[in-house]
Amino acid sequence: MRIGVDYYPEHWDKSLWEQDADLMAKTGVRLVRMAEFAWSRMEPKDGVFDFGWLDEVIRLFADRGISVVLGTPTACPPLWFYEKYPDAVMVDRDGQRIRTGIRGHRCINHPEFRRYARRIVEHMARHYAGNKAVAAWQIDNELEAYHCFCDRCADSFRGWLKEKYSTVEALNRAYGNVVWSGEYSSWNQVQPPFGHYPDAWMNPALMLDYNRFASENVIRFSSWQASLIRRQCPGVPVTTNTWFCEHMPDFYQEFKDLDFVAYDNYPPTRLPEDPEACVSHAFHLDLMRGVKRAPFWIMEQLSGGPGCWMPMCRMPSPGMIRGYALQAFAHGADTVLFFRWRTASIGAEMHWHGLLDHSNVPGRRFTEFANLCTTAKSLAFLQGSEIKASVAILFSFDNEYAFKIQPQTEGYYYFEQLQRVHRACMELGLNVDVVSEKEDFSGYRVVIAPEMYVTDPAVSGRLHTFARQGGTVILTARSGVKDIHNNAVMSPLPGVYRDMAGASVAEYNPIGRDQIPLIGADGQAYRGTQWCDILEPEGAETLVRYDGDYYRGSAAVTRNRFDRGLVYYIGTVGDEALYRRILMDAAGDAGLEVYPDLPPLVEVTTRTTADKVCCFVFNHSPEPRSVTIRGETLSLEPFEMKIITRNP
Amino acid sequence: MRIGVDYYPEHWDKSLWEQDADLMAKTGVRLVRMAEFAWSRMEPKDGVFDFGWLDEVIRLFADRGISVVLGTPTACPPLWFYEKYPDAVMVDRDGQRIRTGIRGHRCINHPEFRRYARRIVEHMARHYAGNKAVAAWQIDNELEAYHCFCDRCADSFRGWLKEKYSTVEALNRAYGNVVWSGEYSSWNQVQPPFGHYPDAWMNPALMLDYNRFASENVIRFSSWQASLIRRQCPGVPVTTNTWFCEHMPDFYQEFKDLDFVAYDNYPPTRLPEDPEACVSHAFHLDLMRGVKRAPFWIMEQLSGGPGCWMPMCRMPSPGMIRGYALQAFAHGADTVLFFRWRTASIGAEMHWHGLLDHSNVPGRRFTEFANLCTTAKSLAFLQGSEIKASVAILFSFDNEYAFKIQPQTEGYYYFEQLQRVHRACMELGLNVDVVSEKEDFSGYRVVIAPEMYVTDPAVSGRLHTFARQGGTVILTARSGVKDIHNNAVMSPLPGVYRDMAGASVAEYNPIGRDQIPLIGADGQAYRGTQWCDILEPEGAETLVRYDGDYYRGSAAVTRNRFDRGLVYYIGTVGDEALYRRILMDAAGDAGLEVYPDLPPLVEVTTRTTADKVCCFVFNHSPEPRSVTIRGETLSLEPFEMKIITRNP
Amino acid sequence: MRIGVDYYPEHWDKSLWEQDADLMAKTGVRLVRMAEFAWSRMEPKDGVFDFGWLDEVIRLFADRGISVVLGTPTACPPLWFYEKYPDAVMVDRDGQRIRTGIRGHRCINHPEFRRYARRIVEHMARHYAGNKAVAAWQIDNELEAYHCFCDRCADSFRGWLKEKYSTVEALNRAYGNVVWSGEYSSWNQVQPPFGHYPDAWMNPALMLDYNRFASENVIRFSSWQASLIRRQCPGVPVTTNTWFCEHMPDFYQEFKDLDFVAYDNYPPTRLPEDPEACVSHAFHLDLMRGVKRAPFWIMEQLSGGPGCWMPMCRMPSPGMIRGYALQAFAHGADTVLFFRWRTASIGAEMHWHGLLDHSNVPGRRFTEFANLCTTAKSLAFLQGSEIKASVAILFSFDNEYAFKIQPQTEGYYYFEQLQRVHRACMELGLNVDVVSEKEDFSGYRVVIAPEMYVTDPAVSGRLHTFARQGGTVILTARSGVKDIHNNAVMSPLPGVYRDMAGASVAEYNPIGRDQIPLIGADGQAYRGTQWCDILEPEGAETLVRYDGDYYRGSAAVTRNRFDRGLVYYIGTVGDEALYRRILMDAAGDAGLEVYPDLPPLVEVTTRTTADKVCCFVFNHSPEPRSVTIRGETLSLEPFEMKIITRNP
Repeated sequence: MRIGVDYYPEHWDKSLWEQDADLMAKTGVRLVRMAEFAWSRMEPKDGVFDFGWLDEVIRLFADRGISVVLGTPTACPPLWFYEKYPDAVMVDRDGQRIRTGIRGHRCINHPEFRRYARRIVEHMARHYAGNKAVAAWQIDNELEAYHCFCDRCADSFRGWLKEKYSTVEALNRAYGNVVWSGEYSSWNQVQPPFGHYPDAWMNPALMLDYNRFASENVIRFSSWQASLIRRQCPGVPVTTNTWFCEHMPDFYQEFKDLDFVAYDNYPPTRLPEDPEACVSHAFHLDLMRGVKRAPFWIMEQLSGGPGCWMPMCRMPSPGMIRGYALQAFAHGADTVLFFRWRTASIGAEMHWHGLLDHSNVPGRRFTEFANLCTTAKSLAFLQGSEIKASVAILFSFDNEYAFKIQPQTEGYYYFEQLQRVHRACMELGLNVDVVSEKEDFSGYRVVIAPEMYVTDPAVSGRLHTFARQGGTVILTARSGVKDIHNNAVMSPLPGVYRDMAGASVAEYNPIGRDQIPLIGADGQAYRGTQWCDILEPEGAETLVRYDGDYYRGSAAVTRNRFDRGLVYYIGTVGDEALYRRILMDAAGDAGLEVYPDLPPLVEVTTRTTADKVCCFVFNHSPEPRSVTIRGETLSLEPFEMKIITRNP
Repeated sequence: MRIGVDYYPEHWDKSLWEQDADLMAKTGVRLVRMAEFAWSRMEPKDGVFDFGWLDEVIRLFADRGISVVLGTPTACPPLWFYEKYPDAVMVDRDGQRIRTGIRGHRCINHPEFRRYARRIVEHMARHYAGNKAVAAWQIDNELEAYHCFCDRCADSFRGWLKEKYSTVEALNRAYGNVVWSGEYSSWNQVQPPFGHYPDAWMNPALMLDYNRFASENVIRFSSWQASLIRRQCPGVPVTTNTWFCEHMPDFYQEFKDLDFVAYDNYPPTRLPEDPEACVSHAFHLDLMRGVKRAPFWIMEQLSGGPGCWMPMCRMPSPGMIRGYALQAFAHGADTVLFFRWRTASIGAEMHWHGLLDHSNVPGRRFTEFANLCTTAKSLAFLQGSEIKASVAILFSFDNEYAFKIQPQTEGYYYFEQLQRVHRACMELGLNVDVVSEKEDFSGYRVVIAPEMYVTDPAVSGRLHTFARQGGTVILTARSGVKDIHNNAVMSPLPGVYRDMAGASVAEYNPIGRDQIPLIGADGQAYRGTQWCDILEPEGAETLVRYDGDYYRGSAAVTRNRFDRGLVYYIGTVGDEALYRRILMDAAGDAGLEVYPDLPPLVEVTTRTTADKVCCFVFNHSPEPRSVTIRGETLSLEPFEMKIITRNP
Repeated sequence: MRIGVDYYPEHWDKSLWEQDADLMAKTGVRLVRMAEFAWSRMEPKDGVFDFGWLDEVIRLFADRGISVVLGTPTACPPLWFYEKYPDAVMVDRDGQRIRTGIRGHRCINHPEFRRYARRIVEHMARHYAGNKAVAAWQIDNELEAYHCFCDRCADSFRGWLKEKYSTVEALNRAYGNVVWSGEYSSWNQVQPPFGHYPDAWMNPALMLDYNRFASENVIRFSSWQASLIRRQCPGVPVTTNTWFCEHMPDFYQEFKDLDFVAYDNYPPTRLPEDPEACVSHAFHLDLMRGVKRAPFWIMEQLSGGPGCWMPMCRMPSPGMIRGYALQAFAHGADTVLFFRWRTASIGAEMHWHGLLDHSNVPGRRFTEFANLCTTAKSLAFLQGSEIKASVAILFSFDNEYAFKIQPQTEGYYYFEQLQRVHRACMELGLNVDVVSEKEDFSGYRVVIAPEMYVTDPAVSGRLHTFARQGGTVILTARSGVKDIHNNAVMSPLPGVYRDMAGASVAEYNPIGRDQIPLIGADGQAYRGTQWCDILEPEGAETLVRYDGDYYRGSAAVTRNRFDRGLVYYIGTVGDEALYRRILMDAAGDAGLEVYPDLPPLVEVTTRTTADKVCCFVFNHSPEPRSVTIRGETLSLEPFEMKIITRNP
């Protein structure tokens, strides 16, 4: 389990480099990420390269046994480049070129940008080929599925569509362009969806394709860089640092061409009012592990109070620096780099705090970090361990895009729906993989398939097979609604899942932020909100009914025996208790061990090595907690993580 | 009483047409609106026309005794047209051409657009001339008083002004342009009010004229289409479907050239928190009837939960589909078309629900609709009946525009003020016409003239005459404030109405969302908000006084005998009880029958035929209600309408 | 003590002029401001001047013993000018030329605008030179540090930078441009900070310089006009009317070249919910007096309910018209002009109410104004009196800009921090000067130096000297944070103030809108919010500690003996009681007299003449108050001001 830091030697006076390296070495830092954003120092003038300063820093680290991760600087071409090619910046939705002045302005499709990017990447990679200190490459920084509306990108979108649909007639059919006389009679008429309109007002099929295009577009860019690096500097793993942003590329595709997953992890320093919202980053971590179903890196980890993009936020409370990093290990990370070693004293991001404050005097957070380094060393035995999960949650980028394009009802978000079921797993101490719906999930015992909105027949087919062969499936409302183009399906909901669910949707009611009482077959009361599928059981048993409104008494949650498997259908958005209850039942059906007595906000996960089962117990709350695990009682301070090891 | 539906054959596979027509016929549908938006199918290529598919559908309907309404497709020129004339789209307030991609992009002043619009309309009208199935024409869709800022529209605005004012000097005087050196010295300097500024920051006289221009501009377009249709297809009535939008054309002018009024009616599916707000669409219906003081059509009626332009809303509760349509009959509609037969499965509007869901399986809403069709048939005797009202509320587009331009105080809206008095009428079971202030209102007994803000001397003259001759007039605050140009009048308020009111405004206080206690002469307490005219009676008696703030004890509501009539003046924005009390008194003065004991949210209206008085009793609440009308006690389910018939 | 009004003869029919002048004279008006905005009347055509009408009005006033203030009309060039030079308007942050149609559109750097401005100003000044009625000149109107992004202004900004930094290398170093490869390699690459990004996302050093540039830019314009006027019309004092806006020029620099300070004063007519917020305009008045440490003018004073830029607000309650004006006298004004004589009946600002309503019938507010005129006359003995303050609050435009650029934490505003300490002074009846940090403050006994964020070594040096020599200094959190470029300082906080404070910041916590309990050494409880400096005393005594969160028990407020002086450091944002307590202590230390028993919202200030001390007691609350001052008990109606005179 390695700990590292993100470091920007170019931000600091040379006189600090050695001192910093010494302190890192002493503290237990094993990896340093550098050079992303430093294009103007590596190529100060067009075609004039200077790696001397970077060589010097790398040597300082290497001398102390510290490896480096090198970032390609393509997020920030120097201003001399933009002066030469002013049209190499992105065009925003209003049709205006964005202004340079921050970062990430480049249009990744601009041919001159690509030429200069190739040159700097190849120079760098060639220069550091064979350098033993270089442990990995990071491509660019926090790549997004950019929505650039320049003519070049518009053309590229048209090209993508031509390849996919061949003729405008086929495209018109796929998009239902007949609505509002929107039929194209030539390719020239096709435009990316710019302008002032909200996404929801545009053709939803066009919008979904545009999102897919934007994702593929940036993935092509990332894969292209990976190939450049590998050609020049073979044998060194390549990744990029991803994050959760407005327009996310399809991680599963993105990392297919990369060697491992890296993620920027900033859990909240101010706990949300709603305690249910606290555990969301556990979901993020499980999602990241699920991308390659393999150990991953945290490329940037919370080091201090965030700020700059927003007013400054609270500092991490005692325990958070250490606890959140250990939590990442508990969910499958094996390398965690902290962003950043020292808080910047220049530039816009100077209030996004590092481990060291501006003062450069090690303080409370640094002490905790040092302590973490020691702990991480002691966890070496976890290297190569596995997180074995019997439960999977399916994730779909088509759905992520489609739900952003057409919000279903006030307050209804795709991610939140996923987190609700994930939280219920956490509360029961169930290891859970969040995986792509395109993956083979036949090895799991329980597959939670929330909101299978856009229908990929291959996926629905595999879900059927999984259930028939004895798996437990949990479905929810808004499944089977759309075809692959994002058009509505003309059949009773949940569409292709109707037979599995053994129930159909007689009617639905989008109730927004209103609430509706629910009642279980055993008299237990729950509450629903946002959406109500009024279910007609067609073989399924009714587990929970609506207890209000004009559909009082109708089924809200059902369970169906489907061949050898069991299929739950949750027709509303329930409260915590409802999901917990369903997961309990589903885990029971599948014979999975749960921890039903965990106190609130205590998280249990397990990593398994060849000869050990390591149980991570994390107190996610600002209060001390006492937990009993297999007869052993643990006391946990706020944000404290304890690890219990036993034989498998 | 006819029921119809809106149907888009071009959205559906041909194989569904016959099946749809069969089900419509069986259900009792008598009218189908079609073809609006279908330009790209009627003229797939420039100059190439194809009405075959539409002929086929019309025949299917005609064969089953169903008539059709044809919409001209001018809201949506095909994309080949925009490709040819990219500058034929509107220019928004920021000076940017809007993006095609939704609908309604065309600048109605663009000469090429007009040429192509003329051609398609004439082709259509000629093609369907003499077709017995065609019951009516609808022009375009939901026309607005568009604010287009293209050079052509700016020129057109200048031309309009030149015609109105002849010289810039006259214009400068009318607008008070001397303020901030805004005087024009040439016509070229005149600009429509584009840019980032809020309306309230611009010259209010310019703004009012611009709104008048925009209204006349679209009305010219609508009248022009009407004349084209009539020339080619004489004898078939022509209308357009209007709605309440940000920039409304003057309905009274708009429908002068059209044969009947048609309105798109979408009452709320989620009842507002504030029960007082529930009855607002009764006001809308009365307003629509008042446009021509004649029976009108609902061209689009609520069929399912709205969505797409916003996240999906609640589905109509049981009773709403039927009840809201019957309510439209009760307020003077005699034809109601539902939007739409089946929910679209393609295009942006796929979440604006029709009678049939995506599944095409008739459900609860459809059953209720079928039931309505039966009821509508049984109401045939109402055809030609009249709504006789003794009370009128005056509506003014000058005021509608002027109050939007200059908001008076936080939370003060023109429409809401009208609705407050309308609601009080509803609560007392008074039939009420909402009519243009420009109309002859001498036949009424009580004229409610709320907020007579912009003063048209002809109107104020007729109001004086009405009162002198024995009518009862109810005036409110913000009357007599502005001259016809929207400049403030230099005389004590209520200006020209001061003599009628027998009181003047010593001072006013805009109190926004604050409240102020009021007390009636009989000790009854009320509450005021938003606005306080501190009244000085000059002959009038004081009915209600302020009971707080520095003007405690001053008159808030007065009543004045004016020659043979009575004039109320309401100087504040009262609560429900205040308006109810004043309307009770005014009805008493005028000797009108009221129903003082109606339970909350029960609405009573009457239509009169040659030999019958039909009393419509509508339960507008989500609870069952019991009502006694002339000794007869009725039980009403939520949204249930019952009709009692008696001799006149 | 002079009372005047703002009057726009060009807005009114000539027939009203004499009648208005008569009423003014009778009422006691001694000054009238005119002509600002009247360019289109003074130069109706390019190069054709007409001062006849203005001469006539001035004569009317002069004949009645009323002087005039003349405004230069440069805020509003006539439309014929913009027609000729359409590019003479400002360019907004989006890169779009703003639209004419309101006022203040001109780019003050446009050479043709400057040429025309020079011509009209010189013509005016020459024409009125020697006219005895002209008491003063006002330059333009409410000048702002405009952020214009036209090419000309961008060039001007580059020129300003070149002069300041000489080389791009120096500029890169000063700005830390290495971050995100933002290094300039040529001057052409430098851009003013336009575009969609929030300020906080841009380089903070660039942003601070840009704000400084914008300030200097408008000050150059103002000084240029002053010199033009003085050359043509020597001997008449020149000012401009300033106000608190988003982008304020540095008042201290701005008024250096002007003869006295003039300010537009609009206290709230609706008292804020939070009673603590009521006294903010006392702070504004003290700030204005502090600009030149001399008596100042109110050029525009609240006369009626504001409106137009927002919906209409409440009218001033009884007492406000008079009380707020007397309050201005109490804080150092000696001339107060009311905006405006009569409410405009034309133009956008017609709902910003004057003393007379549209009706032109003198009402309650006018009566109060007339009464004020009488009182003002009786206060003639105050002319030349002085406000002697022993307490100063330091104000810094660098900080004002820097805190707007980088908000520190949710809810944290620079002005509000200043107001908190100012309020505490008011509550204790302490006269307090708000002065520039660049001023010589050695004469004060207590210097409150809140948030000395951007460090000017000259200032911090003088603060040290002040304390060493026996002064009392009150420092707060966010001091010593930034260097002069707005980069973070690499040393423990409060940086250069650490030795004075005798304490350092071990860690800080930006807590936004959260609260934290505090406890005084004597057990007294307070509350903190927004920011927590966790202090490590290094010699200082701890006055108040945190009583919650992980730093419970740490020092929050300290006091340090520093040589012969005392230095308080307030590490959090406290409640009213905390500041009150610290000010009590500090006043005690410094031997200042306080009024510890003032009831809430009663304000006491003193002006001193050669032979008298005049104590102004102002009831700032909507309730009557009773106050005992030096044994004398006063009853005060809401907004009533009483003046007690005694020997020094």
